[in-house]
Amino acid sequence: MARSRRKFIALSTGVTAVALSSCNKGGDEPSTSGANMRPYGDRAPQEKIQRTIRELTASPGTGSSRTPLQDIYGIITPSSLHYERHHSGVPAIDPATHSLLIHGLVDKPLAFTMDDIRRFPAVSRIIFLECGGNSVGEQSGKFPETVQGSHGLLSGTQWTGVPVSVVLREAGLKPEAKWMLAEGADACRMARSIPLDKALDPEVLLAYGQNGEALRPENGYPLRLIIPGWEGNTNVKWLRRLHLTAEPAMSSKETGYYTELRPDGKAEMFTFVMEARSVITRPSGGQKLTSHGFHEITGLAWTGRGKIRQVEVSVDNGKTWADAELQEPILPKALTAFRFPWRWDGEEAVIQCRCTDETGYLQPTREELIAVRGLNSGYHYNGLRPWRVKATGEVESA
Amino acid sequence: MARSRRKFIALSTGVTAVALSSCNKGGDEPSTSGANMRPYGDRAPQEKIQRTIRELTASPGTGSSRTPLQDIYGIITPSSLHYERHHSGVPAIDPATHSLLIHGLVDKPLAFTMDDIRRFPAVSRIIFLECGGNSVGEQSGKFPETVQGSHGLLSGTQWTGVPVSVVLREAGLKPEAKWMLAEGADACRMARSIPLDKALDPEVLLAYGQNGEALRPENGYPLRLIIPGWEGNTNVKWLRRLHLTAEPAMSSKETGYYTELRPDGKAEMFTFVMEARSVITRPSGGQKLTSHGFHEITGLAWTGRGKIRQVEVSVDNGKTWADAELQEPILPKALTAFRFPWRWDGEEAVIQCRCTDETGYLQPTREELIAVRGLNSGYHYNGLRPWRVKATGEVESA
Repeated sequence: MARSRRKFIALSTGVTAVALSSCNKGGDEPSTSGANMRPYGDRAPQEKIQRTIRELTASPGTGSSRTPLQDIYGIITPSSLHYERHHSGVPAIDPATHSLLIHGLVDKPLAFTMDDIRRFPAVSRIIFLECGGNSVGEQSGKFPETVQGSHGLLSGTQWTGVPVSVVLREAGLKPEAKWMLAEGADACRMARSIPLDKALDPEVLLAYGQNGEALRPENGYPLRLIIPGWEGNTNVKWLRRLHLTAEPAMSSKETGYYTELRPDGKAEMFTFVMEARSVITRPSGGQKLTSHGFHEITGLAWTGRGKIRQVEVSVDNGKTWADAELQEPILPKALTAFRFPWRWDGEEAVIQCRCTDETGYLQPTREELIAVRGLNSGYHYNGLRPWRVKATGEVESA
Repeated sequence: MARSRRKFIALSTGVTAVALSSCNKGGDEPSTSGANMRPYGDRAPQEKIQRTIRELTASPGTGSSRTPLQDIYGIITPSSLHYERHHSGVPAIDPATHSLLIHGLVDKPLAFTMDDIRRFPAVSRIIFLECGGNSVGEQSGKFPETVQGSHGLLSGTQWTGVPVSVVLREAGLKPEAKWMLAEGADACRMARSIPLDKALDPEVLLAYGQNGEALRPENGYPLRLIIPGWEGNTNVKWLRRLHLTAEPAMSSKETGYYTELRPDGKAEMFTFVMEARSVITRPSGGQKLTSHGFHEITGLAWTGRGKIRQVEVSVDNGKTWADAELQEPILPKALTAFRFPWRWDGEEAVIQCRCTDETGYLQPTREELIAVRGLNSGYHYNGLRPWRVKATGEVESA
């Protein structure tokens, strides 16, 4: 750390700043009082970063929006920029009348208002959320030009809510109950079956808070199921119903979607956990280096299995790898930021990263993934993502 | 943990939820497609929590706004609700022309553009920020009725930026340099003198990121000095100039304000560190308990000296104390959330908390503080804050 800090300084000398012969100060700064305060703030008008929206059908709001990872700092994504994936748009739910039904194989069916739910003990967790279909095209060779396009169905926020286990025990579980169908209040009633042993894990939440305030409408307002480390689709938004059953419901989103067709023609279902993955966010596709010399390579790593243990970076097309520095805090099932000092000599270079999680799992290459999974399905794609820095400084998909 | 979880469940039985004889479901939920996606989201129209604004002079934007701590979840405050304290309003700075000047006792005066600054290696940290004047009236006996009024000059966010030490070394420090004046670009050129040994601490940042995106205008856009654990006023907003000197500048904000007049008539200057403090945010003044039985007591603890080690809660007017559960992650110089299960029997009760930090410092009572500091000054007030829960369920300052 001390050594690399010194290296940064030596490398950066001369590439930044204007030396001044006197203390003249540029800029265009005010000499009259500024603006009044606001009860609820907003960003500066110069700031334009935004989600990219992709409508998938003629039905309004059915599709996805992607987080601009190339412009995000640290491990907290602003709620305004959290990714979305909707199946029939963003419903307008009134929290005053919304309720959560718990029924099926329970001793006592119950309906909870939002006030009821907020009366229970609550916990907060900082975690990542990633769509099971993030980078779905890369397995079959479609490489978006930017990291927002390729990895943007990924965000990190702090969620607050009540453990599902607490609420289920209020209703009382019958011994035959093995699965829990979680259903949203969107028009399509998006629903997923969750194995009961997972639903009873204390980290699984009925979340009403995100990044300190109420959930945003596009993130499930007023109530969302949060399952840290599991594919985004199981984190059911606008949660209205938990149905305890003996068997999974075989909903369309666990039969027609979010299953993985293997080379032998069989489809794997209920592939819930997001495995370890990492990506360089700066410099990344669509950006341009405007000078030789020092550049910090920055990126994100995450795993549904716990904590990230190590991130390695290669700047020579995978021939050699060196450890990146991990940014504290390193939290389980959360985004972990990493940084790596790099001196760009102006030659074309292919840069990439790979991570290892605390289980010892090493993020695979695309070739390794295809050898196992074939090319029929791209859900849960977590291969390496190289970027080419051209001699012009332009960065593109490699 | 396991024991208290069971206790929660036993206590909560019967106080929540409507038992259903069949699976009828209330609510008013959509059966048509919802809204489209938005490039940059906003909160739901039903959500109204906001900062309370206090203008202190006739000059626009000179005063403070307070975070609604009673409504905040976890350790991340939304940037839109981060507290403010301004001395001549919120200036509109253009990041394209803004620059940071480093001059005085340096080998080479330098001016950095925002692009220059973003080229340096960057780090992110989740920390609290608290105004040195938070609760300034409590020492002399003025107790606001809500926790927003009494403690709301306190927020917690993730900041991203470049260590000041890296940038200072670019300019080269002369041996005589002992202090660094940090000056903002607001009309009053708010400025504070920072001892150089602190400025060189790698945790002190030139921050351009907050909660994942650019700083908000009211939090210093586009550049703010961040000194974790030190009084908010030293975290100079709209940072335009670092002046290296042999002596402190004796700016108005370190002579006329932010000094502490002791009983002997002498004023203590440069009292930078915010000592350990905690407060119950729910239930707190202005709220009302609507039923007997289980209520989770929730609050925040923080210290400028490192990590919070312990929080204790008393529900019997300070006669007995019991450990609260601390919510992970427990990060140095960050807000730490705590929770404590409580069964309210309907009798009047006085509830309060106290914390101990990793140095062993125990948060003092108001009486202990006054014995040391007298009543002349209320900066850095960190006494206990009891709330009275009346038999009606109404909560007020105790």
